[in-house]
Amino acid sequence: MSHESQIKVNFDNEPYRNEEFVVNYKAPFNAEPRPERLVQSFITPIEHFYVRNHAPVPVINPDTYMLKIDGLVENPVLLSLNDIKTKFEKITITAHLQCAGNRRTMMSEHKKVKGVGWGIASLSNGTWSGCRLRDVLMYARAMPFESGAHHACFWGLDFGCPEDNGKSYGSSITMEKALDPTGDVLLVYEMNGQTLPRDHGFPLRVVAPGIIGARSVKWLDKITVSSTESESFFQRRDYKIFHNGIDWDNVEKNWDNHPSLQELSVQSAICVPAPNSRLFLPFTLYGYATAGGGRKIERVDISLDGGQTWDLAELMGENKGPCSRYWAWTLFRYTIKSIDSKVAKKINIVCRAWDSASNTQPKFVGDIWNLRGVMNNCWHNVEVTVDPLCSKF
Amino acid sequence: MSHESQIKVNFDNEPYRNEEFVVNYKAPFNAEPRPERLVQSFITPIEHFYVRNHAPVPVINPDTYMLKIDGLVENPVLLSLNDIKTKFEKITITAHLQCAGNRRTMMSEHKKVKGVGWGIASLSNGTWSGCRLRDVLMYARAMPFESGAHHACFWGLDFGCPEDNGKSYGSSITMEKALDPTGDVLLVYEMNGQTLPRDHGFPLRVVAPGIIGARSVKWLDKITVSSTESESFFQRRDYKIFHNGIDWDNVEKNWDNHPSLQELSVQSAICVPAPNSRLFLPFTLYGYATAGGGRKIERVDISLDGGQTWDLAELMGENKGPCSRYWAWTLFRYTIKSIDSKVAKKINIVCRAWDSASNTQPKFVGDIWNLRGVMNNCWHNVEVTVDPLCSKF
Repeated sequence: MSHESQIKVNFDNEPYRNEEFVVNYKAPFNAEPRPERLVQSFITPIEHFYVRNHAPVPVINPDTYMLKIDGLVENPVLLSLNDIKTKFEKITITAHLQCAGNRRTMMSEHKKVKGVGWGIASLSNGTWSGCRLRDVLMYARAMPFESGAHHACFWGLDFGCPEDNGKSYGSSITMEKALDPTGDVLLVYEMNGQTLPRDHGFPLRVVAPGIIGARSVKWLDKITVSSTESESFFQRRDYKIFHNGIDWDNVEKNWDNHPSLQELSVQSAICVPAPNSRLFLPFTLYGYATAGGGRKIERVDISLDGGQTWDLAELMGENKGPCSRYWAWTLFRYTIKSIDSKVAKKINIVCRAWDSASNTQPKFVGDIWNLRGVMNNCWHNVEVTVDPLCSKF
Repeated sequence: MSHESQIKVNFDNEPYRNEEFVVNYKAPFNAEPRPERLVQSFITPIEHFYVRNHAPVPVINPDTYMLKIDGLVENPVLLSLNDIKTKFEKITITAHLQCAGNRRTMMSEHKKVKGVGWGIASLSNGTWSGCRLRDVLMYARAMPFESGAHHACFWGLDFGCPEDNGKSYGSSITMEKALDPTGDVLLVYEMNGQTLPRDHGFPLRVVAPGIIGARSVKWLDKITVSSTESESFFQRRDYKIFHNGIDWDNVEKNWDNHPSLQELSVQSAICVPAPNSRLFLPFTLYGYATAGGGRKIERVDISLDGGQTWDLAELMGENKGPCSRYWAWTLFRYTIKSIDSKVAKKINIVCRAWDSASNTQPKFVGDIWNLRGVMNNCWHNVEVTVDPLCSKF
């Protein structure tokens, strides 16, 4: 947000927000729910759904709103909201969105990184209704891949991004993802069965499941089919992961030779209990696990001794059968019945998830530290005190 | 191999093998190349391609060979080798195959596991020609997914598997993978441009890229479309990954609630130099990196200090553009130009790879230890002595 002071932006028309939110940045608004809210329902209620804005929320008249589609398409078109709702099949998916900066604060505690601080709750799970991006791109007659149509670039109407000299937010995904019949990228006008709220992109947003939230552009203004990725700052100079040898002195020559983040890595965190709680047994802990690319969470391991020994958590996810479209998160729980101590004892509870490709989370945050603080998916630890003498019953 | 003594199996008709192979088990034959052979070419020559057999190599007459397709298909068929070659389009892909037991010996050194010991070379990269499994399944009119056609089960002609009471080898993949137009599962009759050799499944084998080698059944006898996974021992009682709390005392009740391994996790290893070498600078190290599910290797990090600080290796892979069909491996190299010492010094070289979903390798083998010793993809370390006083030039 270093350029903020130079950009005149108007935050007078922001929507109402839940006062319970943990606000990580006020303007632009960036907030996450209290972690326990995440595990209270499979679908996160809108009032608790995390918000990651890069600029003021635009005021858009849905009656005059037009989506533009141009670039490498044979039929550049303007589509009204009514066109979107009536010309194309309505699809509903359940998918989680997750910021690439989820758990950044923990990374910054290890060694300072740049970016909005986030705890463990910059993700949420929702239902999304709209039309397939694929259908719209076919309506516009997107040119074949061989002719160079490699990227679907999205621009928002949220002008005034401080990080990008007041431009609106932009980003892109590959045409391979955009056109994949099983990729489920939608242009969304309803969230959890309601009209898409202003904070989440009213009247129309992209939801690109399985990849970092930064690609699901809100307040969608334009889709440009292009041979190159989005020219936006947020595609080219942000949302990339480096090794720890790259710092602010040498990063400039490294932006272009590192890929922009797309698919999410495997992730999990314990939402209940909070760190430093005092637990009375039996106690049931709760958390979430997610994977990118539609991969299924196959297993969540719980350790009560800092990662020396493990046991299986109970998974509460969708059962979609042998299929690779697990866009939703998986919630998990695990009941601690007893501990090997007769007096109150501090224990280190750890969780780690495994996806259907046997990928799992790294152990230490230091090993994956990177200067933008993205993709922190290290083991999540919660230190608590267990009191075996007091029981809830 | 505990049942071996009870099964009468005849190993009199085994093919000729390269005497340079590191033989991990003689009969059934299990062998890997010397690691340096892997990095000498992008395509592994057949004489160095690792071999993982579960039984004697069957003697099959290609003129009378018939592939059977049955189960949930409307048109059960028998196809001759000539049918396979002439009725269906010939496709060639480049793909690596990797045993789920690759690097098992290292896991066993941490704590004993069961299974054939493998070093770092139970993988190889080849070109494979044949027809699409998808085309054959459509020819047999496989029933729709909704009618229960969820798994493609393969049986080999390699009768005499000691681990399964003399039955032939069997395994399955999901119909989703089998039918995916971009999944590239082939029925292969040529390897590296030559007739498929006997050790690799002559006259016909499955190559299911992106998933563990155990699913690419050799000497293919029959494909059964089924609502359930293969009933084979090798699908139900082998090739599964557990946490370290599961041992031989409690594993029996855990086989069924753990998924069979399918997609490979992200992996890498240093093939040159060998451990305990003495290096003269400059020295270029070489290795391989792989990912499952067609994901691209985006980055390989090299550390010369045991993982404290990292630098980028140079990648030598395929450039397939923005696409998710990176079935081949990626080779890498890194030149050590100098070290911070004027006398000979022991250093710990480490590599780790990152795939396009930002998944990376676990640090410690102990953290992913499992009783069958599968999916060991921890950081690969090579301890060497660097002598800065002697130069090659």
